[in-house]
Amino acid sequence: MYEVELKVEADHGAVRAALDDAGAEPVDHVRQVDTYYDAPHREFAETDEALRLREETDLDAEETTTAMTYKGPLVEAASKTREEYETGVDDGDAAAGILDGLGFEPAATVEKERERFALDGYTVTLDAVEGLGSFVEIEREAAESDIEQVRTGAQELLRDLGLDPDEQIRSSYLGLLLADDAQ
Amino acid sequence: MYEVELKVEADHGAVRAALDDAGAEPVDHVRQVDTYYDAPHREFAETDEALRLREETDLDAEETTTAMTYKGPLVEAASKTREEYETGVDDGDAAAGILDGLGFEPAATVEKERERFALDGYTVTLDAVEGLGSFVEIEREAAESDIEQVRTGAQELLRDLGLDPDEQIRSSYLGLLLADDAQ
Repeated sequence: MYEVELKVEADHGAVRAALDDAGAEPVDHVRQVDTYYDAPHREFAETDEALRLREETDLDAEETTTAMTYKGPLVEAASKTREEYETGVDDGDAAAGILDGLGFEPAATVEKERERFALDGYTVTLDAVEGLGSFVEIEREAAESDIEQVRTGAQELLRDLGLDPDEQIRSSYLGLLLADDAQ
Repeated sequence: MYEVELKVEADHGAVRAALDDAGAEPVDHVRQVDTYYDAPHREFAETDEALRLREETDLDAEETTTAMTYKGPLVEAASKTREEYETGVDDGDAAAGILDGLGFEPAATVEKERERFALDGYTVTLDAVEGLGSFVEIEREAAESDIEQVRTGAQELLRDLGLDPDEQIRSSYLGLLLADDAQ
């Protein structure tokens, strides 16, 4: 399966009203604090890898969980497929201690509030990213043969929400933040 | 707090009977499969560190959990104190995938059945280690000022179980297995 994603920068007020009108189902509302690590033996920016600890707080249930994620380099450029491994960890501080002991160092932090909605088989995500702004992302899994159809559907959905698919942003939030830092 | 440990090689039959006579409380009975990793950027044998994934199956409840552990070098030789971080992980295969992606490679595996008993404030552990043999370990946490007293108590307990504290083995199972391999 492939992940089809479309992301634009947008104020959330009008989008939230449009989601409500369209009958979108609220899924969850979380706060995510992502810490990205530098490796002691590789330049992740060059090898196109990432190591992340994500602390996620469910703002309704007030529960916090932590996950460790490794993203490998693109194995297939066209579909943006990459190797990815993720597991929840019981103790976020201990996980950070393990990485620190092994010589990995926190390099950047991305903090955001994330609201997810389900609409017409798609997930619509409203992200408010600290230091960057407000974004709307539409995503859905697709088999290889359905990628184009699912992408077209995501573009239509984005237009239905009053947004312009031509303003698609392809960079990750981490990439946008680092680009801002570099200026 | 410090961990006082005493380990000897011993058949389990007579020890089990002695534990029963002494009124020891069975704590749990597990199977542990430990995978130790080599690092891509350090020689752990030289730096005196270890990175381990432990898959533990509770043989009574038939539940399996996985933990990731980093052990740093000794920070204080006399008390054998070292930095240690451990966290349970939800997905052992994903944790192995993360380590593999980062360039860490499985170097050695230690498999054992472990029975734990509580007796007089100590934990008595019967380990049957594949490829090595049967061992009995007595351990207890102690404040720095109590270390000698707790150690003497562990030696007495070992004698009560029909074992000889002078036969203490200081190497880890991993160390013993690697020493066997080197012969």
